[in-house]
Amino acid sequence: MHLTPLCKHSPIVTSNTFRSRIWASTLHTIRNTGIPVRSRAEAPRLLNLSPRSTIPHSPSIHHISTHKMTDATNHPLSGLWQPTQVQKLYYGRSTVSTHLLSCLPTPSSKAFIITGTSLATKTPLVKDVEQLLGAKHSGTFSKIGEHAPVADLDAATHLVDQDSSVDTVISIGGGSPIDSSKAISYRLHDKTGKWLYHIAIPTTLSASECTMMAGYTEADGVKTGVRGKELVPHVVLYDSSFALHTPQRLWLSTGLRALDHAVELLYHPTAVEMPARWICLQAAATLLENLPRYKEDPRDEDTVTKLQLAAFASLGFLGTNVKGGLGLSHALGYALGSPYGIPHGITSCLTLGHVVKLKAQDPEAAEQVARLLPFLGEKRSGDDKRDAEAVGDKVLGLVKELGLDSDLRNYKVGRDQIPVITKRASGQESGELYDKVEGLVKGLF
Amino acid sequence: MHLTPLCKHSPIVTSNTFRSRIWASTLHTIRNTGIPVRSRAEAPRLLNLSPRSTIPHSPSIHHISTHKMTDATNHPLSGLWQPTQVQKLYYGRSTVSTHLLSCLPTPSSKAFIITGTSLATKTPLVKDVEQLLGAKHSGTFSKIGEHAPVADLDAATHLVDQDSSVDTVISIGGGSPIDSSKAISYRLHDKTGKWLYHIAIPTTLSASECTMMAGYTEADGVKTGVRGKELVPHVVLYDSSFALHTPQRLWLSTGLRALDHAVELLYHPTAVEMPARWICLQAAATLLENLPRYKEDPRDEDTVTKLQLAAFASLGFLGTNVKGGLGLSHALGYALGSPYGIPHGITSCLTLGHVVKLKAQDPEAAEQVARLLPFLGEKRSGDDKRDAEAVGDKVLGLVKELGLDSDLRNYKVGRDQIPVITKRASGQESGELYDKVEGLVKGLF
Repeated sequence: MHLTPLCKHSPIVTSNTFRSRIWASTLHTIRNTGIPVRSRAEAPRLLNLSPRSTIPHSPSIHHISTHKMTDATNHPLSGLWQPTQVQKLYYGRSTVSTHLLSCLPTPSSKAFIITGTSLATKTPLVKDVEQLLGAKHSGTFSKIGEHAPVADLDAATHLVDQDSSVDTVISIGGGSPIDSSKAISYRLHDKTGKWLYHIAIPTTLSASECTMMAGYTEADGVKTGVRGKELVPHVVLYDSSFALHTPQRLWLSTGLRALDHAVELLYHPTAVEMPARWICLQAAATLLENLPRYKEDPRDEDTVTKLQLAAFASLGFLGTNVKGGLGLSHALGYALGSPYGIPHGITSCLTLGHVVKLKAQDPEAAEQVARLLPFLGEKRSGDDKRDAEAVGDKVLGLVKELGLDSDLRNYKVGRDQIPVITKRASGQESGELYDKVEGLVKGLF
Repeated sequence: MHLTPLCKHSPIVTSNTFRSRIWASTLHTIRNTGIPVRSRAEAPRLLNLSPRSTIPHSPSIHHISTHKMTDATNHPLSGLWQPTQVQKLYYGRSTVSTHLLSCLPTPSSKAFIITGTSLATKTPLVKDVEQLLGAKHSGTFSKIGEHAPVADLDAATHLVDQDSSVDTVISIGGGSPIDSSKAISYRLHDKTGKWLYHIAIPTTLSASECTMMAGYTEADGVKTGVRGKELVPHVVLYDSSFALHTPQRLWLSTGLRALDHAVELLYHPTAVEMPARWICLQAAATLLENLPRYKEDPRDEDTVTKLQLAAFASLGFLGTNVKGGLGLSHALGYALGSPYGIPHGITSCLTLGHVVKLKAQDPEAAEQVARLLPFLGEKRSGDDKRDAEAVGDKVLGLVKELGLDSDLRNYKVGRDQIPVITKRASGQESGELYDKVEGLVKGLF
């Protein structure tokens, strides 16, 4: 049994919520309209389509720049890495109070804060940052909802645009405020020609701060996004003291999301051996070791810091060379997340362990996943399939240990949705692949 | 016994061959003279001096830009990473013939080749690249000697300057041609205001291609250098087919040099936990595993590729945040290399294992080195000192296994040089530190 076709060649799926699934190499705009191309920010690798064929109503797409992309191969070992790196990454305690001001691009910089309601109202963090900025603070938009609705982006962009002295956006929170800040910078650039300097202060482990992609939700519910090197946050401040305010379930489940990134990059056919896979092996090992430690003592800031570094490592070194979305667990995450309102941290808890066990049947994927075993303190057996399955079991065990195991019924998803989810995630209506994914989806109830 | 003072505070050493030892943060020029500041490209961390105090004859130094640097700490875990990344890194077979032309910055680019005599006369590689470039080839300078004498740089810079259509330099070889190409770009920028686009095709494991430093030797024998983000090669083409032409002893000994980088970054007090240490752990493990494989079968291109990736990983992620030189093994390397004409690959073979065993007595260094043991397939004992010593023994064992063990008498260094070498490397004339280093140096005979 060989699942490679699952990863490499899948037909187009067009549904209302997934009608746009581009993972292109560069920043896109629709020529003459100023409207960002509908682009699935983390579109599953299964659904790697050419832009023209996937945007039925976008006749003219402008690629600002293009570059060649190259597959990575394992036998022989070959590939291309093109980094999309942050300029400064601070980690540790009190990094915000110590370093935020020195991170502003100029002495006369003014910053706008983008954050979510909970952080702004239930923690002192946003007020602390505002006070720290003092006269350098232009304003705060704290209404970014989950999945970043476009109406919120419009409102925030309008506010930022009103103060022409703003050159910096500071995002505080999880994926939504960070992605929204990227999208706001994109929209402002469309209007004014300037990019905002982006300082990200992440409070979850979703790793949005290390990507060049911004996902958001259009008025009609369509998940869409923009992508470009200019959207990578310039500074990341991992402040363990900030993270202490994050609800534990959110912290732990986004940790599983980071693990999902790291594991699915391992078997991604265009991920490079070094640094992507090398660092993902360590990211995964660090997450598996430190998420339980965090559950035991969520106040241990060194544990928090290690988890933040692992989150960055899970996605920060993939480079612009990686083609397509990640893998089946991410595909299932998109099939489950938006349509049923399930946070992506939770979708990873639901799917990753099972996906790894399914991928263990694909020798190429198994070879990569099996490499993780020694990082988890276990010896390789010499049988990649068995070792990859052992890794899958460890993921399932971790989810259980963290109290994150669940079933889809908790999210008001009925068993009648099995064919809908399977079709969305597999891109198939029947056949061997469909059957495999269906079997996996059935196990989520 | 605690060796921390060895690493952190050492007095100034001034000798004829080592009178300039700057490891500064940014590119330097001496104002109004156009002469690059004398700066030790990989000056040992022991000898971390302020520029003004170490350059007696350079009254006016201009730092083009400055940035704050931050120590990394382990307890609590904190730090700052500022990447100095390559733009494209290709690895695998035939990457040069497949990708070189597409790596040129523009369709009308013209390139100048910098290489060494052996490569130009004893291998077909340079001719192959010239043919590949065709009309895009401006010229080749193949007389770069070891340690890059400044007269060679002057001659090459003059040639490049004569063809105003040259926008690219292609370096083929080890550290000398790669560092020279950086220095030529620096000198040309001084004259014309333009930087050359640098494509590096490394044929050793010295890792010069991933740093922002260029070391060369002045007319009076003083090792000097320049340093700046603009000097990082833009493209690295690791071509395993090219590496097959490298003499095996050179390949293996520069592999030990890469191991030296990786290990000394592990216990460097300003190296960040992620990515620097995480990736250095893997670099060291990959080198320890694959150098013997290479010795067994030097034609296995996957082994060659893994070693090339490990070389990059050994130094490519330290970031501009790393202060000072590396560690005692590098300090000894500088005390032994230039003064006695010993290649740096060989100095690492001589010193690294012994230095690791000495550093095992420093609890902070031991804690970091001990992390390597599981990457080498061994269990941690719970005693960092013992584990770090085990790593030191593995390094010594590797050197022996590769047939690279030697003693200083083979390089016409007499035992009367022991105090000279000890003083140069330790920065001391007597005392506990001097005694320790002296004991180590005595063991090299």
